[in-house]
Amino acid sequence: MKQLINLSATFIFATTGIAFADPLPSWADTEARTRIIAFVDGVTDASSEDYVTPSDRIAVFDNDGTLWGEQPVYFQLIYAVDTVKEMAKNDPSVLTSDALKAAAAGDFAALAKGGLEAILEVINATHSGRSVDDFQANVADWLETAKHPTTGLGYDQMTYQPMVELLSYLRDEDFKTYIVSGGGVHFMRVFAERAYGIPPEQIIGSYSDSSYKMVDGEPTVVKEPGIAFVDDKEGKPVNIERIIGKRPVIAGGNSDGDFAMIEWTTAGKGPHLGLIVHHTDGEREVAYDCDSHIGQLCDGLEKGPDMGWLIVDMAKDWSVIYTGAR
Amino acid sequence: MKQLINLSATFIFATTGIAFADPLPSWADTEARTRIIAFVDGVTDASSEDYVTPSDRIAVFDNDGTLWGEQPVYFQLIYAVDTVKEMAKNDPSVLTSDALKAAAAGDFAALAKGGLEAILEVINATHSGRSVDDFQANVADWLETAKHPTTGLGYDQMTYQPMVELLSYLRDEDFKTYIVSGGGVHFMRVFAERAYGIPPEQIIGSYSDSSYKMVDGEPTVVKEPGIAFVDDKEGKPVNIERIIGKRPVIAGGNSDGDFAMIEWTTAGKGPHLGLIVHHTDGEREVAYDCDSHIGQLCDGLEKGPDMGWLIVDMAKDWSVIYTGAR
Repeated sequence: MKQLINLSATFIFATTGIAFADPLPSWADTEARTRIIAFVDGVTDASSEDYVTPSDRIAVFDNDGTLWGEQPVYFQLIYAVDTVKEMAKNDPSVLTSDALKAAAAGDFAALAKGGLEAILEVINATHSGRSVDDFQANVADWLETAKHPTTGLGYDQMTYQPMVELLSYLRDEDFKTYIVSGGGVHFMRVFAERAYGIPPEQIIGSYSDSSYKMVDGEPTVVKEPGIAFVDDKEGKPVNIERIIGKRPVIAGGNSDGDFAMIEWTTAGKGPHLGLIVHHTDGEREVAYDCDSHIGQLCDGLEKGPDMGWLIVDMAKDWSVIYTGAR
Repeated sequence: MKQLINLSATFIFATTGIAFADPLPSWADTEARTRIIAFVDGVTDASSEDYVTPSDRIAVFDNDGTLWGEQPVYFQLIYAVDTVKEMAKNDPSVLTSDALKAAAAGDFAALAKGGLEAILEVINATHSGRSVDDFQANVADWLETAKHPTTGLGYDQMTYQPMVELLSYLRDEDFKTYIVSGGGVHFMRVFAERAYGIPPEQIIGSYSDSSYKMVDGEPTVVKEPGIAFVDDKEGKPVNIERIIGKRPVIAGGNSDGDFAMIEWTTAGKGPHLGLIVHHTDGEREVAYDCDSHIGQLCDGLEKGPDMGWLIVDMAKDWSVIYTGAR
């Protein structure tokens, strides 16, 4: 009998042991952490009125500024500019416009002056006219060596460790975690599985026009110039509805580009959690919100709290920022 | 010791018992069935050179004519025509065009004469100007009572039993099964989970324009007039690449609308299986291929076998056709 009891104790410890491990070690012991854990406990407790069946446990997160950094400019734009530089090194005649010349010179201020048109030109020149496979191989090469101008870290080391832990925690609790980002879907898929544990089919983003054609006798999907869908603002709920077909239970973002996605999620029936990552940490990262040239956050701060959204204060709520800076 | 041996035998039987159950009971004992099982055995055997890691086991199938019937016209068009009839009953003034009048009269021949334009008008009139939720509730109501004109079966009883078994078998072998169909994504999601075991996020199809707006104070995704993407022909590989981000291992279809999808799949590196459901059974279903007004199949029959595609002969290879006719 004693042996049986010992065996049972071992069994109980072994099967429930995971509950004793801290799921969010890089979150400080603040209200944000408490609220997240209480929410997850509620939706996963079969005896709770907040219980959500596993197949409906959908969690969506923006990428730039929510799961990894986005300053001084979106990392995908840095990739594009670096790629123009490479192209110009091989063949300077490709620099046929002011926008491409600004990119080759690494002059982001001049690019910004050219507005959306200039940026689209740089994106088209670097993101189209080649197969998805070629494009992704090129992004992978870039990620291997490129370093961020101020942190000196590789870009895929600039993921936010607390958010990486949150994604993993949610998956352990049978959530399906998705990225829903204004960033390019083909770009993000190069690193998201390794960096976040999110497979290609759970990454939703903006995308270019594509064509299916024979290239050197091989059927190939080719990225064409032109952006077919911008996965930002109202485009986010539209795309989630179109691709996932379920209203999420959790939505997280950091800018007003995420407002519609979080609004739609938290207006749903049943329990839901809206989360805003507020960039408050000027020492360990960059402090910015409503006046920022990138990741502007005004509405979310003003209206989010009244809708029950959790505003995460990076300086207070996170004990670590970058995964690569642990 | 004897007890231990008995225990081991029980354990072995319990854990491997599933392998003894016939995974494809409605497939006749023909080469098609043998090839499918041999292929699945190869890609799931870790010691085989054909082994595919579970996360890459993606199987995509067309819906109309592949997983359920499509004669005498696509069932979604029958839904649209029935809905115009309902609308006209409530308010005859909605019949503002010849196309809508033909639909209200159930005159498919007149509709066909009006061509794509007439059909799009009927689709727009019935599929837009309301929320996705409203639309799907309406489709669900229709499915509950509507009967097919020749079989008398409910439409969701006209799924092909052998294909339902194939989907289930593939999932048991850790494949992720997807629908990739020219049919509307919102339409298919109403019944696909129940009928095929395929959840909303694994259904890819054509889709209308959508908007995100406030309706009666609630954030709502609304279906708008206009078709934003036609998930047919070259659109299928483009959409698979965009939404799944992996080249499938198995692709099945029944018409030349599926040719590009199967071609792209079977041109991939590593093991792959292309499958065409050939409608050969004029007694139990409808026999049609190259000359058909719907689900036309010429290229697949002519070029598929040379590319190693499995041409399934419904009359010979399937012992049962409809799920509802078992």
